[in-house]
Amino acid sequence: MEKLVCREFRPGRRFVGRLPHGKDLIQSVENFCKENSIVMATFSLIGAVSSATVGAYDQKQQVYVTFKENLPLEIVICAGNVSLKDGNPVVHAHILLGDEQGKTIGGHLFSETLLFAGEIEIQELIGNPMERASDAVTGLMLWKN
Amino acid sequence: MEKLVCREFRPGRRFVGRLPHGKDLIQSVENFCKENSIVMATFSLIGAVSSATVGAYDQKQQVYVTFKENLPLEIVICAGNVSLKDGNPVVHAHILLGDEQGKTIGGHLFSETLLFAGEIEIQELIGNPMERASDAVTGLMLWKN
Amino acid sequence: MEKLVCREFRPGRRFVGRLPHGKDLIQSVENFCKENSIVMATFSLIGAVSSATVGAYDQKQQVYVTFKENLPLEIVICAGNVSLKDGNPVVHAHILLGDEQGKTIGGHLFSETLLFAGEIEIQELIGNPMERASDAVTGLMLWKN
Repeated sequence: MEKLVCREFRPGRRFVGRLPHGKDLIQSVENFCKENSIVMATFSLIGAVSSATVGAYDQKQQVYVTFKENLPLEIVICAGNVSLKDGNPVVHAHILLGDEQGKTIGGHLFSETLLFAGEIEIQELIGNPMERASDAVTGLMLWKN
Repeated sequence: MEKLVCREFRPGRRFVGRLPHGKDLIQSVENFCKENSIVMATFSLIGAVSSATVGAYDQKQQVYVTFKENLPLEIVICAGNVSLKDGNPVVHAHILLGDEQGKTIGGHLFSETLLFAGEIEIQELIGNPMERASDAVTGLMLWKN
Repeated sequence: MEKLVCREFRPGRRFVGRLPHGKDLIQSVENFCKENSIVMATFSLIGAVSSATVGAYDQKQQVYVTFKENLPLEIVICAGNVSLKDGNPVVHAHILLGDEQGKTIGGHLFSETLLFAGEIEIQELIGNPMERASDAVTGLMLWKN
């Protein structure tokens, strides 16, 4: 792909809500989408976790390296999207976490990441939903054009 | 609360603006909301500060730990929302700051945090506004359902 | 400027897309805007880069200090806007990058920053577009009121 190619969407429903204490972040968002028939959306959230799993993609080996943080951390920011993989709405999000000295770690958000509290905004997108498939160049599950 | 429960809003006015040099970040946004009768919104901004106060929530002790940075820093990202507390629009935002080596600190945004420059987008939300109240489980001022 | 003053915009087209592998981030977004006659927008994206150029503004000397990272990094978050400078749509964005240990660096996004992969959302804004001009107080290219 030589340049940025986008698909145009119409704005659907706009939701704001409180994230559930003690639950997994990705599962909470995906379950909400399934219950509300959302197949395509963008979202962002702030809050805190009691533990987190974050990763980075090893671009040469084409595998994710993950690391788990078993301590309370602020969610400085978490932003991502919902689109289809194998017909189901799946979350792709990145997260930045901060400790009590403000020191941060960040990367690709994985389960399990357990919520302490949080506030999310979700913008449903109406149109031909993006679908994920394996990309030969990067080894990632990217959107098909 | 067992799962993510959201409230649906209609998009209101969408604002973009330049943050005032030398002023407090939270107060600037809250004053703008009061002047424009905004009671519910989401916003994000980038820019720079001349000093900042950031914190993290001690989930066990249920108190915020804060720290002050008395130096110029980039606002790598600041995202948050406006909702009601005691009938007034209040900001809840998290911020990430970066120094001249790109080293970052982040967490819950407090006053006082003094702006050097910045650019903000604000999306007003129309509907039944969220209201904050003390939450027994976390000790935080969370949105009532 | 004593307080936050904003301009109101109507939402235009909303785009979601996949960023091009191996291309410069800023140029990709600016080219997309030119091709689609976008003069004012906000955007955010997540993804990864193969190399990046990031900076911070030296508020006393009024110059940007930049640093280059010649290694694969996650884009934890990148957020910014498009507005006019000398009649052309230009990107102003900040970026946060994370390595394989989750260690982060962040600041003002510069070219060249080469994409590995990424997913962007762009919200076109309709109205009187913001225009950049030199600001005497900060030395930055800020929006004229």
